[in-house]
Amino acid sequence: MLNHPDRLFPADPGTRGIARALYETVRELPLISPHGHTDPAWYADNEPFPDPARLLIVPDHYVFRMLYSQGVPLERMGVMPRDGSGAETDGRAIWRVFADNYHLFRGTPTRMWLDNTFEALFGITEPLTAATADDAYDRIAACLERDEYRPRALFERFNLEVIATTESPLDPLDQHRKIRESEWGGRVITAYRPDNVVDPDFEGFAANLDAFGEISGCDTGTWEGYLDAHRTRRGFFKTFGATSTDHGHPSAETANLTPAEAASLFDTVRAGTADAAQRALFRAQMLTEMAKMSLEDGLVMQIHPGACRNHSGAIFERFGRDMGFDIPTRTDYVGALRPLLEAVGLEPELTVIVFMLDESSISRELAPLAGVYPCLKLGPPWWFHDSPEGMRRFRELAVETAGFYNTVGFNDDTRAFPSIPARHDVARRIDCSFLARLVAEHRLREEEAQELAHELAYGLVKRAYRL
Amino acid sequence: MLNHPDRLFPADPGTRGIARALYETVRELPLISPHGHTDPAWYADNEPFPDPARLLIVPDHYVFRMLYSQGVPLERMGVMPRDGSGAETDGRAIWRVFADNYHLFRGTPTRMWLDNTFEALFGITEPLTAATADDAYDRIAACLERDEYRPRALFERFNLEVIATTESPLDPLDQHRKIRESEWGGRVITAYRPDNVVDPDFEGFAANLDAFGEISGCDTGTWEGYLDAHRTRRGFFKTFGATSTDHGHPSAETANLTPAEAASLFDTVRAGTADAAQRALFRAQMLTEMAKMSLEDGLVMQIHPGACRNHSGAIFERFGRDMGFDIPTRTDYVGALRPLLEAVGLEPELTVIVFMLDESSISRELAPLAGVYPCLKLGPPWWFHDSPEGMRRFRELAVETAGFYNTVGFNDDTRAFPSIPARHDVARRIDCSFLARLVAEHRLREEEAQELAHELAYGLVKRAYRL
Amino acid sequence: MLNHPDRLFPADPGTRGIARALYETVRELPLISPHGHTDPAWYADNEPFPDPARLLIVPDHYVFRMLYSQGVPLERMGVMPRDGSGAETDGRAIWRVFADNYHLFRGTPTRMWLDNTFEALFGITEPLTAATADDAYDRIAACLERDEYRPRALFERFNLEVIATTESPLDPLDQHRKIRESEWGGRVITAYRPDNVVDPDFEGFAANLDAFGEISGCDTGTWEGYLDAHRTRRGFFKTFGATSTDHGHPSAETANLTPAEAASLFDTVRAGTADAAQRALFRAQMLTEMAKMSLEDGLVMQIHPGACRNHSGAIFERFGRDMGFDIPTRTDYVGALRPLLEAVGLEPELTVIVFMLDESSISRELAPLAGVYPCLKLGPPWWFHDSPEGMRRFRELAVETAGFYNTVGFNDDTRAFPSIPARHDVARRIDCSFLARLVAEHRLREEEAQELAHELAYGLVKRAYRL
Repeated sequence: MLNHPDRLFPADPGTRGIARALYETVRELPLISPHGHTDPAWYADNEPFPDPARLLIVPDHYVFRMLYSQGVPLERMGVMPRDGSGAETDGRAIWRVFADNYHLFRGTPTRMWLDNTFEALFGITEPLTAATADDAYDRIAACLERDEYRPRALFERFNLEVIATTESPLDPLDQHRKIRESEWGGRVITAYRPDNVVDPDFEGFAANLDAFGEISGCDTGTWEGYLDAHRTRRGFFKTFGATSTDHGHPSAETANLTPAEAASLFDTVRAGTADAAQRALFRAQMLTEMAKMSLEDGLVMQIHPGACRNHSGAIFERFGRDMGFDIPTRTDYVGALRPLLEAVGLEPELTVIVFMLDESSISRELAPLAGVYPCLKLGPPWWFHDSPEGMRRFRELAVETAGFYNTVGFNDDTRAFPSIPARHDVARRIDCSFLARLVAEHRLREEEAQELAHELAYGLVKRAYRL
Repeated sequence: MLNHPDRLFPADPGTRGIARALYETVRELPLISPHGHTDPAWYADNEPFPDPARLLIVPDHYVFRMLYSQGVPLERMGVMPRDGSGAETDGRAIWRVFADNYHLFRGTPTRMWLDNTFEALFGITEPLTAATADDAYDRIAACLERDEYRPRALFERFNLEVIATTESPLDPLDQHRKIRESEWGGRVITAYRPDNVVDPDFEGFAANLDAFGEISGCDTGTWEGYLDAHRTRRGFFKTFGATSTDHGHPSAETANLTPAEAASLFDTVRAGTADAAQRALFRAQMLTEMAKMSLEDGLVMQIHPGACRNHSGAIFERFGRDMGFDIPTRTDYVGALRPLLEAVGLEPELTVIVFMLDESSISRELAPLAGVYPCLKLGPPWWFHDSPEGMRRFRELAVETAGFYNTVGFNDDTRAFPSIPARHDVARRIDCSFLARLVAEHRLREEEAQELAHELAYGLVKRAYRL
Repeated sequence: MLNHPDRLFPADPGTRGIARALYETVRELPLISPHGHTDPAWYADNEPFPDPARLLIVPDHYVFRMLYSQGVPLERMGVMPRDGSGAETDGRAIWRVFADNYHLFRGTPTRMWLDNTFEALFGITEPLTAATADDAYDRIAACLERDEYRPRALFERFNLEVIATTESPLDPLDQHRKIRESEWGGRVITAYRPDNVVDPDFEGFAANLDAFGEISGCDTGTWEGYLDAHRTRRGFFKTFGATSTDHGHPSAETANLTPAEAASLFDTVRAGTADAAQRALFRAQMLTEMAKMSLEDGLVMQIHPGACRNHSGAIFERFGRDMGFDIPTRTDYVGALRPLLEAVGLEPELTVIVFMLDESSISRELAPLAGVYPCLKLGPPWWFHDSPEGMRRFRELAVETAGFYNTVGFNDDTRAFPSIPARHDVARRIDCSFLARLVAEHRLREEEAQELAHELAYGLVKRAYRL
């Protein structure tokens, strides 16, 4: 057995008993996945997944960054350089390198997600090592050939009530259309992620704005036309089920310029002559514009700030984005969010979900802000903090000031489709363990904890994301 | 039963037994409340408290900020706008809204303080819900009509050995005089809080300085006269029992200008022509001046830095200060306190108690500073951190470097008079739980823990505040 | 009995049992001490240590800073002012003051290290108090006269496999030569610590560069000659066993100037006309130069950033460096290390071990960086964080993102030779306790925990430091 039924519950027997009982009440609840990065083509085409390595290793930066940190070249993990100069293509060879190094993941959430996936999805009960690598590979590969391992079947098996993918405004949403037009009933929705037409530092920004004009039928040569393009595309995304937008910014900076100032700034940015401060100001202004549009059209706004992207220039040059070299930085929220909050922060109809990569901000800034502004809610611990210790600290740091009800349940935020049940399971276990401690310390009654367990696993996310 | 006798003790049975035994030795010790914001008029006039809502909800920003964060207008909580344009005045209506939303406080210290107050003070044993709201209201209202619920009787019932209120230098201390002149023996003292004559950004600063000159009989048109006014008023406050001063500043910045520079800066500030940097420098200089005066007159100095006050302009405009919109910010102490410490930091006769709202500074800056400078002591976790998890983290982060003896016990820091015993009780339980863990892990002998439990509950605060 | 056999293990009986079993497998492993500040003359001359106070109190800033914080003058602790104006010289008198104040150390690692040393090394079983002070003093003094308490005998008794001291490039390593030339087989090696010829703010920097030229035979009047001097002395240090360099910088700033820019900057620094920004830039550039040399010569690079040295000018003036007045500050790594990492960060043959004094950086910056850059490893929690709670937090904050294998085991980092076994013992107990929790929560299998316990106590440090 790879996964103990009591995993992640506190060791103290009394508290563990409470946690286990709470968990039993939420274990089978449907999964709501309001924020993630799975590929809608999977659900549209319903093709079998490729080999085990291409399913579980090559696309997962959590996995290959750890091996790279210990000296394994990315190419050996199957990651192809941009110039196509070659990478390992034999799935089994990649898998063996991975298995040889699986001990590196001890104590990490990746190990927990993978062990859970191995056993629950593929029936593997032996620990992955060099010795068991081939057996595991064969077993997974054999599964992937079967119909019940195709994306739609897995979606149903995972008990997914709804999953959101993330698309740019330039995406025609053809995959989503195909899903809609199919006979399949799975609820796959999109989310509006406009970074590539909002961030002047994005590769191809100017061309993106041209394409944005074309796809929206608006004149993105002017500030007003550009805003209209957003309004138009947001509306289009809503017809494909979108209930939210998402914004990945280097910082949480917001601004609230006058329309004339904003228009003039846009002209500079559009002309490609904006300096770094102006480009940052434009991003800041756009967060406030997006919040204002959310107030109009009801889309929930998500802000994901604080990552220094592509920290290694050489890696970015050779392999491009999302190679595990995005590193969190110190992030201010109190000053940064103020302009947006001054503009629309007291509107109870608006929902802005803020995420963090800087844990020092939780008790100092985020919980106090979310504990008073009607529009603000706290996103779950994200990315490097989507982990047992990270989740536990988040609850310990946030709840006393923000309460449970200014948080929004769990996001799996993943590209790794097969790991989705494992990720939600970790969150449910950790939340039940936290609640169990409160019960054991007589800070919460057991019936309150049961209600909260349901809210944290299901109710809060559904309401916060308007699903 | 609303409050379990073992609440807040660790779940592990062995550790809980140790915690319970330690707690029993300090449970009944008198309360020392050296820093708070209760109204001296209560003790002076000894009038009955008004209705339950006006006692427990309307004045408590912890309470109404949480409801506001979930969409309840402040006016429905009875908070009156500055223009008097109307707020709920029916105590029972306010109470019902509160009871309907009481679940929002699950996991917060407010819930723990209130449940304790409900049961210990008013004999309520049923959880507060919409269904029990009226019964609870009636029961509390009936109590408040009885003489034993008047302020002086509660003071005695709470076993308060001494309580400090906080007054500005412009306060004639008439309420304190009335208490002194009464036959009542309760020890209510004042503390010197000069923010309104020290901070050029304070509303009405110029007029405040005029009034400061008048009440002190000093010429606050000159730097020397201004300093004399402080000296005079500090002396006056001492005659009403003051043993401390208190300083709420946006940052911990201090400065140590020459007298000529300081005088010139004062002239600019007095003339109302100081820019933001000069106004900040003036505040910084005044902390050092206050420390120097403390060395002269023996008043213990408290520094409360790091809150961004009145974060929402719209709320400040409509309701004024203290509306739950003060948000902590990242705070530096190492560079900021250095000028003050260079001036007087090595004086063992001086006591400067530093508080924090930025937990990341505890192990990094505050414990190392307090662990070497003779004048420095660490205030207890404050405001948003006056909570079970906040207190636990404070001990875990501070004690290994600063020891227990460079901390100063507990401050309740509250406007909410009836919650005072509950707040001290939480601190005693958490401190005993922390000590119990050290005993259970054989890091402390049981008799040492007993001595420390007494120090943390009673000895340290009494000595640190010179009470 | 002063030291319980189960000290530091978690209180929960099940988890404690696992921790105890893990600890038994590593308890007797040899000690590897790759980074510390013991005096090589001790091993060279093998003279008896002086009296108990001069062994355990006078040189230990952890000890005298705590007493100073509570008003005991440094002179009473035997710390001599630079002007020789007088300090207590009677070891017994110093010891008595210390014993009178030993309660101040409750809850600190110093107390744990000393109690362990008292009992394990000197056979003392009674708690140190005013009443037992003289007995303890006599007992220790009597031991110190015996041959088995001389440095070499203790080295062997402590089961030290290897210890590194730290020397400046200006040190002729005569003590190390004497050790080499003796018949004694203990492995004492040096480490290259060039702060005094790298930091333009170091006292006597210009004269140091002259001496650096002299001892290396290189022309330290030019940039190239200066770099050669480093290469030469690094090579010389390697002949005395050095496997590492060490760099204590105010910040983690690095730079990667062109050779021409660097040469020009060196000229300005050499001429003594560099301003603060240029001096900082020179330190930053030198970290990258040292990393490049490490890539050439294989020395492991250690970076110890983030202390504000000599915080009190008056203390520095009177007593000099290392008086307990070095205070950690907020430290950025993500931006600061980037130039160095852009230059050589992807080289798997390079090892750069980064230490921290700012715990907020662990999960936010250091673990994500070490979890991807092949050259980076995380040093153990250091200085104020070399403590049970500090170690526990480090594991909780680092492992989920960096894994165990991007950390490097334990450094004792001490001047206090007799405390070395106690310090390693604390680390082994805390690491086994952390592993035990992972096992108890079914996040790790027991056989994995055993393997990791061995790695954390012995394997990782040996490999990381190339010993």
